[in-house]
Amino acid sequence: MYSFISDLYPICRSITGEGVRRTFREIQKYIPLDVHEVNSGTQVFDWTVPKEWNIRKAFIRTPRGEKIADLRESNLHLVSYSVPVRRTMTLAELKPQLHTLPDHPEWIPFRTSYYKEDWGFCMSHRQFEGLEEGEYEVVIDSSLEPGVLNYGELFLPGEKEDEVLISCHVCHPSLCNDNLSGIAVATFLAQKLQSMKLKNSYRFLFIPGTIGSVTWLALNEHRVSKIKNGLVLTCLGDAGGLTYKRSRQGNAEIDRAVLAVLGDAGSNFNVLDFSPYGYDERQYCSPGFNLPVGVLMRSPHGTFPEYHTSADNLEFVKQDSLEESLGTCLSIVKVLEANGVYLNQNPKCEPQLGKRGLYRSIGGEDAGRRQMAILWTLNLSDGKHDLLDIARRSGLPLEFVLEAADLLMEAGLLKAQKKV
Amino acid sequence: MYSFISDLYPICRSITGEGVRRTFREIQKYIPLDVHEVNSGTQVFDWTVPKEWNIRKAFIRTPRGEKIADLRESNLHLVSYSVPVRRTMTLAELKPQLHTLPDHPEWIPFRTSYYKEDWGFCMSHRQFEGLEEGEYEVVIDSSLEPGVLNYGELFLPGEKEDEVLISCHVCHPSLCNDNLSGIAVATFLAQKLQSMKLKNSYRFLFIPGTIGSVTWLALNEHRVSKIKNGLVLTCLGDAGGLTYKRSRQGNAEIDRAVLAVLGDAGSNFNVLDFSPYGYDERQYCSPGFNLPVGVLMRSPHGTFPEYHTSADNLEFVKQDSLEESLGTCLSIVKVLEANGVYLNQNPKCEPQLGKRGLYRSIGGEDAGRRQMAILWTLNLSDGKHDLLDIARRSGLPLEFVLEAADLLMEAGLLKAQKKV
Amino acid sequence: MYSFISDLYPICRSITGEGVRRTFREIQKYIPLDVHEVNSGTQVFDWTVPKEWNIRKAFIRTPRGEKIADLRESNLHLVSYSVPVRRTMTLAELKPQLHTLPDHPEWIPFRTSYYKEDWGFCMSHRQFEGLEEGEYEVVIDSSLEPGVLNYGELFLPGEKEDEVLISCHVCHPSLCNDNLSGIAVATFLAQKLQSMKLKNSYRFLFIPGTIGSVTWLALNEHRVSKIKNGLVLTCLGDAGGLTYKRSRQGNAEIDRAVLAVLGDAGSNFNVLDFSPYGYDERQYCSPGFNLPVGVLMRSPHGTFPEYHTSADNLEFVKQDSLEESLGTCLSIVKVLEANGVYLNQNPKCEPQLGKRGLYRSIGGEDAGRRQMAILWTLNLSDGKHDLLDIARRSGLPLEFVLEAADLLMEAGLLKAQKKV
Repeated sequence: MYSFISDLYPICRSITGEGVRRTFREIQKYIPLDVHEVNSGTQVFDWTVPKEWNIRKAFIRTPRGEKIADLRESNLHLVSYSVPVRRTMTLAELKPQLHTLPDHPEWIPFRTSYYKEDWGFCMSHRQFEGLEEGEYEVVIDSSLEPGVLNYGELFLPGEKEDEVLISCHVCHPSLCNDNLSGIAVATFLAQKLQSMKLKNSYRFLFIPGTIGSVTWLALNEHRVSKIKNGLVLTCLGDAGGLTYKRSRQGNAEIDRAVLAVLGDAGSNFNVLDFSPYGYDERQYCSPGFNLPVGVLMRSPHGTFPEYHTSADNLEFVKQDSLEESLGTCLSIVKVLEANGVYLNQNPKCEPQLGKRGLYRSIGGEDAGRRQMAILWTLNLSDGKHDLLDIARRSGLPLEFVLEAADLLMEAGLLKAQKKV
Repeated sequence: MYSFISDLYPICRSITGEGVRRTFREIQKYIPLDVHEVNSGTQVFDWTVPKEWNIRKAFIRTPRGEKIADLRESNLHLVSYSVPVRRTMTLAELKPQLHTLPDHPEWIPFRTSYYKEDWGFCMSHRQFEGLEEGEYEVVIDSSLEPGVLNYGELFLPGEKEDEVLISCHVCHPSLCNDNLSGIAVATFLAQKLQSMKLKNSYRFLFIPGTIGSVTWLALNEHRVSKIKNGLVLTCLGDAGGLTYKRSRQGNAEIDRAVLAVLGDAGSNFNVLDFSPYGYDERQYCSPGFNLPVGVLMRSPHGTFPEYHTSADNLEFVKQDSLEESLGTCLSIVKVLEANGVYLNQNPKCEPQLGKRGLYRSIGGEDAGRRQMAILWTLNLSDGKHDLLDIARRSGLPLEFVLEAADLLMEAGLLKAQKKV
Repeated sequence: MYSFISDLYPICRSITGEGVRRTFREIQKYIPLDVHEVNSGTQVFDWTVPKEWNIRKAFIRTPRGEKIADLRESNLHLVSYSVPVRRTMTLAELKPQLHTLPDHPEWIPFRTSYYKEDWGFCMSHRQFEGLEEGEYEVVIDSSLEPGVLNYGELFLPGEKEDEVLISCHVCHPSLCNDNLSGIAVATFLAQKLQSMKLKNSYRFLFIPGTIGSVTWLALNEHRVSKIKNGLVLTCLGDAGGLTYKRSRQGNAEIDRAVLAVLGDAGSNFNVLDFSPYGYDERQYCSPGFNLPVGVLMRSPHGTFPEYHTSADNLEFVKQDSLEESLGTCLSIVKVLEANGVYLNQNPKCEPQLGKRGLYRSIGGEDAGRRQMAILWTLNLSDGKHDLLDIARRSGLPLEFVLEAADLLMEAGLLKAQKKV
């Protein structure tokens, strides 16, 4: 995943344009992503698909003739969606168009102006402070014209029509944690799931932030009811511990599944309640949809100083963190595959487990707790508790409950409840 | 308000009689109170409107010929509702009729005998201890005869039929906190509301304790269902912090509104759960009505030693406290006026706030939290949460949520939900 | 009770056979127990009533000719349900059939093999370690043949058909706490209840563990819906504090009743949530029945080292503990007899308590709290709260609420709500 991120890092992405398409071509080296296009001007709920933005070059020439804030040096130097500019101006005229981070004088900030036609440059505060009086030449060779918005989609059908949505945003340029890490984890997760026999269907979306999810929801409204669980993946490569932000529903299956996985893993983790600020969960969890979609991340946006700066670079993300994030996603998938409401087929009194080899026959470590998992699973499989509920009420690790359910299914003592 | 309390202090009030009517005439100098009368003997649920009690003079003449416990010196000297007496008795015969406070030897207690025909005098324990043997002349020139019970009512109609009930008791004689403070705050609150354009209707009741609320409820049973919120006002002038006693429902709109106001104000305050002891909330919250009526007070009855003694006097109440109490009532009214369930008119995905000047356009202090209030209000305006719920779930001050709702209404993004 | 336990201690009980019948004859000296018999081979849900086991003698003769592990010395020496054996074997052959407790080398463990035909002996680890090489003669003169399973039942009819189930297991041989203490408390409780006029009906079951409750439930399935409350009694004689294990429902009337009794008693006690492991509550609380049956005990099984060993002997149980346990059972019965949902007959406003002698007429200690109990009971007797709820919400001792309900019933202000 780290190497994949390294390949994606130099590409100048925005919410539309060639950078996004190049990114999709990179992803297609791993998974058969479908790339969709939606024309500029298309109305999507309250929004309009914007013009397509492409950039060829951008820089400022100083009075001494030196090129600074050159896009070729860093994709962050140019405010994303800057309109074309070619003019000469004084330092005083230029300054309002320049963005810096006085608290981190060596870093370049990341700025955008998607929905208001404007332009600007970002640079280190140190460089900004060294600017001398005189005439500056500003060159932005961009185009902002009717075109398309692209998004990538991969649908992996399972036995059931119920879908798990995995969504990540692809609009950020050279920022590694936010969100090349999300793209990498989603890509590798999809690759793993392709080779598995799945009960649920899985839908992966690689979309520009906000406008991408709004567009997908507007064009796929008839499919939305099939989404039974979902995760937004972002900021999954930094060295911080895992964080889960609950869905708006708060205690949906995805919420209980992620918390069971994180709880059983034994590492520190944080849980945030839903709030209507963040990534594309804002759209999935808007009141008209209220989908059970949470966010898996490590350090949340805005809580680390490198966020949306040039310091969110290849040094800021770690292969170990990416791997743990991917492993967590796979564990969550495993739980979603196995979870369900089961019905005890012998609900009056306990079944005689001994004659079925299920009583005191479990050996090895944790034999006692694994026996208890069998008793709990029988006792609570009354049509009102899924396996996640049983793990939580019993206080047992979910894996013991999943194992118990398997054994009881084999013994004919448990059957999956049909959903109404 | 302090000056108004000073005017009311000398009047000898009880649950019926001329003292109550004089009090209503004082209140009518500020607001157009309707004074109702209900005949003695009228059956009101399980109770009967008692005979009217009036008192002309009352004193005890000592063996030395000195007048003591003279009603002209303190209204508290006579047990309220004492029957007429004119007799001579020994100290030993007199003593069982005398009430004192050994723990506070300088104070005169307040005693009543409304529903059992009896008589008695209250005096300081110091005076009681100085009584010498001999013949005492007891003079109580009272009348207890068929007449009327009076109560005052002011109805301020609003746009809606939904009523907010404000109730205070008017039966206590020279006791300032309990409850001249309640009368004063209710009167000044009514005066303020008269000049406002109101959504809710407001009904102010100035009633003798217990029998007054029982009588009003019995005679107005058909109106009771219109009462959607209510407050009993009492003990609002002492130097203690504010206290709110919840309605029997416990989490009604009035409960959430008062707690939001007190919480946002930043001062210390106490919250008491409902209990069936106290003031007229006992009747409003009886199980057959179960109205959403709480109690706003400062120090609760029985928690301060001055309660029901001559020490609850003009020194015990403070203009500052009265003003804070009135201000709190006005804030509660403001919340009840603004609160409601609203519907996001663009519930599928977020609306594009930028094009409406609602995104990152809020300046000044707390710009971030006020932006969040807009997002939360949109997200939770799904017909299931009122603005108080939104403030609580978001953790934001209610005023930011009220502001957000206003801005979103203006932008056409929110509409009030019609009540079914 | 201690003397009764001493009488029962020497009897060699198992889940079937003469030992259980002798035990029932001892119980019948106190209460008119009905003894039922169910034929071996009868199908009861997923189980089959086993063959009847009887034992005449059992011992091992050492190479030196000494008798050890003689049943006449301790009923625990023989694994319960051992098949007949008469053979000679080497020490190496014998060892796998011997059970000891290395951590408690002086104690004999208790072992059974009810559902798998097998045999074995239990002995102290000290004795086991002294066994020398040579030929051992094993004598088990038992029979395992078609016969009957017995259980004892006593039904005490009350005014109502609603039943309280009291269940204890009778299958353990010389083990005092588990469960001669349960048998003794149940017997003495039944004896007390026989002389009382009861509202509820009471059903006492003295049954072999697991197979007994499975059998009773299978044969009495049509009666199960009458069981509104139940307690399993076990381990009630040790010196530890009382413990209550909640029913699977968790907050049923029995759960609230026991917790109110334990809470008001003022001693330390423990509360355990339901888990599907333990005694016959496993069957009563299986999902197909989900009866409101909890467990009253002192030290729970498995938490004291003497559990299921020869150290659970006549020294381990205390008359004081047995008496406190019985007293607690009687208090619980008293609560179940008195509890109910009552309806305030004057629900609109408070009734005038003074004219009924119920206002400030309660004297003695706790007069204030007992007055409050009257007000709370009136206020919450709205058809939705039983007296246990009222005690909990008011924070008052249950006995004050029960007293208040009595006084209010007498005054005609309260009526029991008819169950639908």
